[in-house]
Amino acid sequence: MRVDLAADLGEGFGDYRMGDDAALLEIVTSANIACGFHAGDPRIMHATVAECVRRGVGVGAHPGLPDRVGFGRRTMELTPHEVRTDVLYQLGALSAFATAHGTRLRHVTPHGQLGNVAAVRPDWAAAVVEAVTDFDQTLAVVALDGALTAAARSAGLPVAVLGLADRAYQEDGTLVRRSSPGAVLTDHGQVAERVVRMVTDGTVEAITGRVVELRPDTVLLHGDTPGAVDLARTVRAALRSAGVAIEPLASVLAARA
Amino acid sequence: MRVDLAADLGEGFGDYRMGDDAALLEIVTSANIACGFHAGDPRIMHATVAECVRRGVGVGAHPGLPDRVGFGRRTMELTPHEVRTDVLYQLGALSAFATAHGTRLRHVTPHGQLGNVAAVRPDWAAAVVEAVTDFDQTLAVVALDGALTAAARSAGLPVAVLGLADRAYQEDGTLVRRSSPGAVLTDHGQVAERVVRMVTDGTVEAITGRVVELRPDTVLLHGDTPGAVDLARTVRAALRSAGVAIEPLASVLAARA
Amino acid sequence: MRVDLAADLGEGFGDYRMGDDAALLEIVTSANIACGFHAGDPRIMHATVAECVRRGVGVGAHPGLPDRVGFGRRTMELTPHEVRTDVLYQLGALSAFATAHGTRLRHVTPHGQLGNVAAVRPDWAAAVVEAVTDFDQTLAVVALDGALTAAARSAGLPVAVLGLADRAYQEDGTLVRRSSPGAVLTDHGQVAERVVRMVTDGTVEAITGRVVELRPDTVLLHGDTPGAVDLARTVRAALRSAGVAIEPLASVLAARA
Amino acid sequence: MRVDLAADLGEGFGDYRMGDDAALLEIVTSANIACGFHAGDPRIMHATVAECVRRGVGVGAHPGLPDRVGFGRRTMELTPHEVRTDVLYQLGALSAFATAHGTRLRHVTPHGQLGNVAAVRPDWAAAVVEAVTDFDQTLAVVALDGALTAAARSAGLPVAVLGLADRAYQEDGTLVRRSSPGAVLTDHGQVAERVVRMVTDGTVEAITGRVVELRPDTVLLHGDTPGAVDLARTVRAALRSAGVAIEPLASVLAARA
Repeated sequence: MRVDLAADLGEGFGDYRMGDDAALLEIVTSANIACGFHAGDPRIMHATVAECVRRGVGVGAHPGLPDRVGFGRRTMELTPHEVRTDVLYQLGALSAFATAHGTRLRHVTPHGQLGNVAAVRPDWAAAVVEAVTDFDQTLAVVALDGALTAAARSAGLPVAVLGLADRAYQEDGTLVRRSSPGAVLTDHGQVAERVVRMVTDGTVEAITGRVVELRPDTVLLHGDTPGAVDLARTVRAALRSAGVAIEPLASVLAARA
Repeated sequence: MRVDLAADLGEGFGDYRMGDDAALLEIVTSANIACGFHAGDPRIMHATVAECVRRGVGVGAHPGLPDRVGFGRRTMELTPHEVRTDVLYQLGALSAFATAHGTRLRHVTPHGQLGNVAAVRPDWAAAVVEAVTDFDQTLAVVALDGALTAAARSAGLPVAVLGLADRAYQEDGTLVRRSSPGAVLTDHGQVAERVVRMVTDGTVEAITGRVVELRPDTVLLHGDTPGAVDLARTVRAALRSAGVAIEPLASVLAARA
Repeated sequence: MRVDLAADLGEGFGDYRMGDDAALLEIVTSANIACGFHAGDPRIMHATVAECVRRGVGVGAHPGLPDRVGFGRRTMELTPHEVRTDVLYQLGALSAFATAHGTRLRHVTPHGQLGNVAAVRPDWAAAVVEAVTDFDQTLAVVALDGALTAAARSAGLPVAVLGLADRAYQEDGTLVRRSSPGAVLTDHGQVAERVVRMVTDGTVEAITGRVVELRPDTVLLHGDTPGAVDLARTVRAALRSAGVAIEPLASVLAARA
Repeated sequence: MRVDLAADLGEGFGDYRMGDDAALLEIVTSANIACGFHAGDPRIMHATVAECVRRGVGVGAHPGLPDRVGFGRRTMELTPHEVRTDVLYQLGALSAFATAHGTRLRHVTPHGQLGNVAAVRPDWAAAVVEAVTDFDQTLAVVALDGALTAAARSAGLPVAVLGLADRAYQEDGTLVRRSSPGAVLTDHGQVAERVVRMVTDGTVEAITGRVVELRPDTVLLHGDTPGAVDLARTVRAALRSAGVAIEPLASVLAARA
């Protein structure tokens, strides 16, 4: 058994920093790197890709909405053409840094509200998929199962199912909304146990208590809250103890194929 | 004999437009396309590249300083690393639209103050050249002869000498400053005659009256002032009458080689 | 009888221009000046206010959403607190230029999607009204009748009813959506006649043919389409011929009181 | 004897934070608040002004160059008109939040490169002073002695001399460049002693060992490095022990008059 561990990285801007990238880079095997719209700038992108290459961490794009002051978390009613071209621009921009460091993009996973809307609205899902198809058909689309993964599969793109370590799930495999009670899990042992179960058993206990299927190719870890890095380390250690190989997404997907 | 005719295109932003792109696209064989820093946005980049492909116009990058309100014309003291990463970002971003439309970038020519400083300061010249080298060593660097062309030649990049149709030259091949008397030529017949002479004879009459050598691979035309498009048409017609083949830069450089 | 004629002005950015401000400034008695978010920059704000003062045109704020590439026309899900603080920021910024030129702001009228949403959603309407109340309770709120005018009246702010010269109305006094047939009126004579009727008779013929009440304090003219300035001149001339005094909004409201 | 203690506050942006504003607000009597160009946004400005009012901390403007990714620290060759209008815009924007919270601006002190250049170049100094004069002639200009304080005095504006707690001085009262050895003082006891001496004795020991005159109205403290807040507390305690009254700048200047 194998799984990829990923984190959102390079989400600073100018002199600002967000999260503990250095610590996360010691834990993960894939990086979702901000592309300059919701966060990130050319220096941060350059340095983050360089560090990923140095450590053998897979480089992926984390494009966002053009709303830096809102960190890409606010709804904006972009047209599908705006979504497609904004994503294409960001894929290209990050890709230049991958090329400069002798690697290439492996995956794309939309950030914040771009991801939230693309997960449920077919027009935005199609727009993201068209951008990826236009740019590089070997890029894996990483998302919770939904409109985006469906559109990506229809288009013949590689798809990686995302598992969230510290979030509660509904029975249908969608997340419990962050504002609902019990939506965010904080007990490190419990989180680690859930992740191991997802990966080794392909199941998760939904918030209702019912066990549902969930077999993630990649598990997203966080680094922007106190204790988050400790949690990430705990998850990694638990997976290793359970005999799971932790490998970059490209290896995980190749082994699945 | 052959020469490329080029123009700066896609320099609008959002609902704003700059220059008469539609008219220029009927005249030129290469486009210097803004990349979203001093001007341009993903929709404009998408549409401009699409139109270039439809017409067989070569696509090049026109990266600028990160100063949209100043249109990239104001001096900013960027470090060479900032120059390099800002250029790399823009090359990648535009390149995604080229890829999406089934073409690729052919050249890069820095805009405004980025170009002005890179033409005279070795550190900025080296930074631009490093970005191009990092990204795609087949890209031609287009500039007036100076620090940038020297650095590009040292690095083994293709270099295209730029000729300006409507500007007066010093004896050393640099431009007369725009603020000096006689710096900008406005007589269409005279401008056309000068361009024909540059291309067919490899010379230009400097502002002092002395004839100096200048053999441009590409001649830059403008479209943002009244009469500019007419002038561009006049230059094109005069070159054709003189038996000059007007071809995209890649063809011109290939024939030179 | 008297009415104010207004236009949205100063909607350029950097080297970009939008509409024919010089022509409109000869026609209108009030200006809705962009404040740097959807459009406008400090130089344009400075010059536009200066020209208003020179001509006796009343200065008002035209705040927009923080979306320059979308010209403030795209929906963004701002919280009411974000709306309130974004409007407050823009009111202050424009006000500094009014102070510098020896005048002060007279009114505020939200631009684009900020105006569209504030006209129908009480939370955004309240947020705009709170910003105005916080800043200057003598500022008139200019809008179509709706949630914003209701909130402004409740808060005791002066309210000016906006009439649109070239748009069709529903029977309830709201506009026919721009995408519907007949939404935009293009016959100059008809438009002028409608405006005269609104002002002198307090009525307008709705798109259904029924005559409904509409008594605008200020009529909005446009300058960003071909023929728009001619239309504005025609409207002004027709009002003058009908004996209507064309005066800045402050005078119109004072006379109403 | 009395002195004002000040800090640069509100220098976050969106979700980003810079420095420990909460801790500094317990120590200082004046705040230099970022205005949205180099840092700051409407929410942060609103909250920072609110907190200043709650604590009786004087509110001042800290305008910067329009370069958020460079945090206003990079040279930009703005024209004096660009400086003047950019400062005016920022003064107005911050002022709106002061008005909303029932206070008003008391001082202005330019940030980063805007301050560095205005301190030595008469054209930028004049531009800043014109903006202040245009906006509110009661605002005190806070700066190291130099071109800006000279221009402000000539214009009849109140001027406050700035003292830097942890920086070495030349004999002429200018700072030793940050990159020179000994430019930044790190021993808390020594820093506190120097500040007490400036305030009580009106002198400071220059880096050469010679004692020169320096009588600050306001001393700038920092909060963005480890130990900075401790240092600020140490300075405050030392001043109190020496019998110095720590009061907002307006009180200090009133007592001087």
